[in-house]
Amino acid sequence: MQVQINDIKRNWDFRSDTVTKPTTGMMAAMLNAPVGDSVFGEDPTVLELESRVAKLCGKEAALFCASSTMGNQLAIRAHLHSPPESILCHAKSHIFQYESGGASLLSQAMMLPVTPSNSINLTAKDVEDNLILDNSFCHKAPTKLVALENTFSGVVMPLEDMQQIAALAHGHGIPVHLDGSRLWNASAATGISIADYVKDMDSVNLCLSKGMGCPVGALLVGSTAFIDKARHFRKVFGGGWRQAGILAAAGLYAIDNIWPTMKHSHQQARRLADGMTRMGFTLVLPVETNMVLLALDAEHKPACEKLIDMLKTEGVILGLVYEGSLRLVVHHQIDDTCIDLVLSTASKLGLSSN
Amino acid sequence: MQVQINDIKRNWDFRSDTVTKPTTGMMAAMLNAPVGDSVFGEDPTVLELESRVAKLCGKEAALFCASSTMGNQLAIRAHLHSPPESILCHAKSHIFQYESGGASLLSQAMMLPVTPSNSINLTAKDVEDNLILDNSFCHKAPTKLVALENTFSGVVMPLEDMQQIAALAHGHGIPVHLDGSRLWNASAATGISIADYVKDMDSVNLCLSKGMGCPVGALLVGSTAFIDKARHFRKVFGGGWRQAGILAAAGLYAIDNIWPTMKHSHQQARRLADGMTRMGFTLVLPVETNMVLLALDAEHKPACEKLIDMLKTEGVILGLVYEGSLRLVVHHQIDDTCIDLVLSTASKLGLSSN
Amino acid sequence: MQVQINDIKRNWDFRSDTVTKPTTGMMAAMLNAPVGDSVFGEDPTVLELESRVAKLCGKEAALFCASSTMGNQLAIRAHLHSPPESILCHAKSHIFQYESGGASLLSQAMMLPVTPSNSINLTAKDVEDNLILDNSFCHKAPTKLVALENTFSGVVMPLEDMQQIAALAHGHGIPVHLDGSRLWNASAATGISIADYVKDMDSVNLCLSKGMGCPVGALLVGSTAFIDKARHFRKVFGGGWRQAGILAAAGLYAIDNIWPTMKHSHQQARRLADGMTRMGFTLVLPVETNMVLLALDAEHKPACEKLIDMLKTEGVILGLVYEGSLRLVVHHQIDDTCIDLVLSTASKLGLSSN
Amino acid sequence: MQVQINDIKRNWDFRSDTVTKPTTGMMAAMLNAPVGDSVFGEDPTVLELESRVAKLCGKEAALFCASSTMGNQLAIRAHLHSPPESILCHAKSHIFQYESGGASLLSQAMMLPVTPSNSINLTAKDVEDNLILDNSFCHKAPTKLVALENTFSGVVMPLEDMQQIAALAHGHGIPVHLDGSRLWNASAATGISIADYVKDMDSVNLCLSKGMGCPVGALLVGSTAFIDKARHFRKVFGGGWRQAGILAAAGLYAIDNIWPTMKHSHQQARRLADGMTRMGFTLVLPVETNMVLLALDAEHKPACEKLIDMLKTEGVILGLVYEGSLRLVVHHQIDDTCIDLVLSTASKLGLSSN
Repeated sequence: MQVQINDIKRNWDFRSDTVTKPTTGMMAAMLNAPVGDSVFGEDPTVLELESRVAKLCGKEAALFCASSTMGNQLAIRAHLHSPPESILCHAKSHIFQYESGGASLLSQAMMLPVTPSNSINLTAKDVEDNLILDNSFCHKAPTKLVALENTFSGVVMPLEDMQQIAALAHGHGIPVHLDGSRLWNASAATGISIADYVKDMDSVNLCLSKGMGCPVGALLVGSTAFIDKARHFRKVFGGGWRQAGILAAAGLYAIDNIWPTMKHSHQQARRLADGMTRMGFTLVLPVETNMVLLALDAEHKPACEKLIDMLKTEGVILGLVYEGSLRLVVHHQIDDTCIDLVLSTASKLGLSSN
Repeated sequence: MQVQINDIKRNWDFRSDTVTKPTTGMMAAMLNAPVGDSVFGEDPTVLELESRVAKLCGKEAALFCASSTMGNQLAIRAHLHSPPESILCHAKSHIFQYESGGASLLSQAMMLPVTPSNSINLTAKDVEDNLILDNSFCHKAPTKLVALENTFSGVVMPLEDMQQIAALAHGHGIPVHLDGSRLWNASAATGISIADYVKDMDSVNLCLSKGMGCPVGALLVGSTAFIDKARHFRKVFGGGWRQAGILAAAGLYAIDNIWPTMKHSHQQARRLADGMTRMGFTLVLPVETNMVLLALDAEHKPACEKLIDMLKTEGVILGLVYEGSLRLVVHHQIDDTCIDLVLSTASKLGLSSN
Repeated sequence: MQVQINDIKRNWDFRSDTVTKPTTGMMAAMLNAPVGDSVFGEDPTVLELESRVAKLCGKEAALFCASSTMGNQLAIRAHLHSPPESILCHAKSHIFQYESGGASLLSQAMMLPVTPSNSINLTAKDVEDNLILDNSFCHKAPTKLVALENTFSGVVMPLEDMQQIAALAHGHGIPVHLDGSRLWNASAATGISIADYVKDMDSVNLCLSKGMGCPVGALLVGSTAFIDKARHFRKVFGGGWRQAGILAAAGLYAIDNIWPTMKHSHQQARRLADGMTRMGFTLVLPVETNMVLLALDAEHKPACEKLIDMLKTEGVILGLVYEGSLRLVVHHQIDDTCIDLVLSTASKLGLSSN
Repeated sequence: MQVQINDIKRNWDFRSDTVTKPTTGMMAAMLNAPVGDSVFGEDPTVLELESRVAKLCGKEAALFCASSTMGNQLAIRAHLHSPPESILCHAKSHIFQYESGGASLLSQAMMLPVTPSNSINLTAKDVEDNLILDNSFCHKAPTKLVALENTFSGVVMPLEDMQQIAALAHGHGIPVHLDGSRLWNASAATGISIADYVKDMDSVNLCLSKGMGCPVGALLVGSTAFIDKARHFRKVFGGGWRQAGILAAAGLYAIDNIWPTMKHSHQQARRLADGMTRMGFTLVLPVETNMVLLALDAEHKPACEKLIDMLKTEGVILGLVYEGSLRLVVHHQIDDTCIDLVLSTASKLGLSSN
């Protein structure tokens, strides 16, 4: 059967890289993927994707999940097994801020949010200062998992910090999970392979429906025993899906075809950041991958709001107000024309250059 | 862009209707569905499917979920809000037997499994005899949800029983949830509309990836407030997905194109059951929709096992050993040729007719 | 300082052995017990009681708890560590019927209630038929604990059944917990020592505030590692108490002074049961220890109710309507005069003898 | 029966006010208290204590619990009913730091720890800046409880701050719980009545086994509906106790006889603090009630450790190393001779005066 696939039109939306839509090439790949009942372990495309991503990570096994939140919550659920227990994490991490307290609801675990002393990413010192190692007359919920995130708000967590934290945690028998939803970006930005990044991690979650452009999906990666446990919990959470190979095919396509475009998205983000700062806007965090966070304080807020309004009429959704900043996320469906348009529109605002 | 979709080959698999694979027509529908970020509530095809199924049920709202287990567990989670509490359900129901104790893990709820006095479906008398209505000096977890299932192992639960149970439960302020994963079949078999079936239910879950033939998905249906609550929990469970419209499009296609074929599947199941019983096999439950459960006791086991082996060489997976019986599930990818083949093979076994 | 302790007056209350009140001897023992902060592990009387009961059970350690429900729930919580998981128990057991679904609320565990084939106590066959040993494509919550109860409604569970069930469970790596709230009675009735009863059990809970007559308390007993874990959870549940030695002293007193009187209570129960049956009342369960359960069906209900009323005027609270029977519980504060009074009053009812 | 009660000997232990032991007067009160089965609601002394403390608080009802941790966890459990939800609390509060993550384990709730901008107690501004009021596309666990603590490390939380926080929270329909374990001290120190302190609180926990000197117990206080709910959960946690009147009698005695001595303990703490600072020790927090927290930094640590050692030989346990400070807690069993001894011993250390 011959089918016509319509190309998606313009997707000039800076709110998040989650807004990316499948391209025609990705669609074509999805169409002819062999499928089967994945709950019975029989979907060949799911198995291929899981195998490929496990290998990419240098780990034994992977599990195809409906979202990164599912991947993270399964990791927490599968790592923990001795309550009362707590999870040490970045105070601004996704699992603490944007997963609706899932660790407490699903895993009965307390979260211990730690604010990094360098204001950006956790260091081994931060972790060491906050680890709960004994239960001191039964008053404490000892740390049983350390959870990291890379990239965090577009900033790359240095490999050395990850390694040092892992060494510290492992020294106490504590596993380390990495929310690597955007580790694809970290790897594209630094040239460090995914495998090198996760070598010391006990588990990692990689997202497919952010910068990778797939419609749905994420992969949780770890040892075979860990993934078997996570698969059981995936069923409990209702994440056991049947002919998911259709979605897995998009993942395989993205690794080959979308991932290589990420470096360009980062250059666009850099160009955007440079242009905006020249025009008087202020960055809240360094721009190392695909995110530009602009200050939204009293001084900058009016210009930001005006810019959002002006661009809306041009079909551009500029960004998302996020933790007191304006977050612009670049993805493969933002083209250079769109970057030009944002910069030229911003230049009309007449904000004094720095 | 023009794409070639290959037709799926033979799918002669009686283990479950979950093994159904998307047809080329369904694929074509999926391809050109408009999509958006469904976590932001912006996927038009998801919204269309949710709206259509809500209307079909005569309810306010629906939520597109990754599986029926997710739909059921979200229903439980969203209905309960006053622990300690318990759920009254059929002792052989899916939520008690096949959801890994999810109600206890996710919702801290105790399940009270009740064996129906008629051995098939719960009646109002069964429910009344087992309701826990007060906490008697704090010793009890009162019933806060009654959960029904229709069809159950292919048998239709009578509308009158559903209505009487709902009246009883509602008289005590207790909501009723229906696991209607295969309610499509009940409606096709009896001619009673889905809306009539669920009129007195507070929530219902309808599956798309069983007899409806979609690759992935189920719909939880109820009031707007209930669905809003369930949507929040869907995110916690990791079931918030992005461009899910691709999957929702399959659901819309199935309602129009696969559902109408269910009556035929039921006739095939009937023909299979009649033929098998004539040849000496014994039914465990009445065949009212698409399931044929054959006795696997000492007398019948050898013939069943031989039949399974003989058909395997013909490319037919005959069924699943399930609760002491051999379960054959008919679906739209079992054609008449396949039914003929099973019957002719069985006839060669020379089992004495009854 | 010299203090006058008033003797408790009449305690002719058959509702439960939980209504027993501390005697003056017990009070005197409580008064001069050395105490300390038990959360810091410094209460000498608590330590003495824990050590004594551990030894009595032939186990490593014990934990003094506020109630048997706490002991049972701590046992469940401390044994389980690998959700999704389920607990196999008697369908009429205390943990399933009278602990408000605590296992699900506190430990996220599903309870699998099993009705004994002999209608009284679980046998190894019952357990074997209901064990869930694998997760079959992630659909199941495997059995991770078997929970027994002895005595159950006053009936002694045979040691052989306990041993066979333990052998079966241990063969699958599953621990066995015994709710031995009234194991004191079983031991008094059969002459089998507590240590022999619990030899194959992984943990046992023994109650002090039922037939043992203490105001408050129970002991959870098991291995050191298990009790350490349970102690942590006791703090989480709010059961960490400070100068609990006052209560522990009552326990030490009861072992020496009240336990030896149990045999007499059993004889009284027997005399009561024999008298009542001669007068036409019907027993629901055999009378092996301190409980007499009389049928409350249409035939017997009027006489039972009349008897309750007649005795109320004599200062006797006859019993508790319990699961469709009238439960009379004999304890050390029911004297022979009281038994005589019940029997003579019953004889005035003129019920035809059997 | 006449019984001799031995007076407790010296209790010169500054680690905590939890180490207090019942006095002979308290013992005498406990001895003759009428008791009954409190699970059946029949213990008159428990009922009297609950009624008296409820009245003292100007609330409808109270519940006698085994510990303050139980009171706090029951409050959390009874207030919450709509997960996913979070609790806003002081980052150093007892419920976040010393209850083993109970809120997550028992109530599936996420805790949001907030560091006060004034470094001591939460203000309405702190609460306002951290309230989570909506679920923003299902990513958040909204604040459903604000938990305060007074006193906190011996420092009194100003009534105005409590009132302003309550007004703010109530404006959003959020209840406020007060961990008032040592509210007795706050009231003794400021002259503000307990009732005035808790007027705007939805629930409060008051401890009996800290400065009040009882062996065991705490009271949770609130509306009748709230306490009924809490009572149900108390049973689930295993906190339902039988003849608890023996312990309740100590509480009634303490209100009349120990509470009035608290002002003197505060004066002793003040005298201790003044003396120690004159000798060069440094206070970590203001001394407003019964706690003196001395700095344990490099400069002061050697002197503190030497002092601990010197006093140990005199039979004084000086304190507890606690969050980087040396915590001395004064209670009614620390007499003036003991304070004199600590000060005279410290003076021998020859630390230069400020």
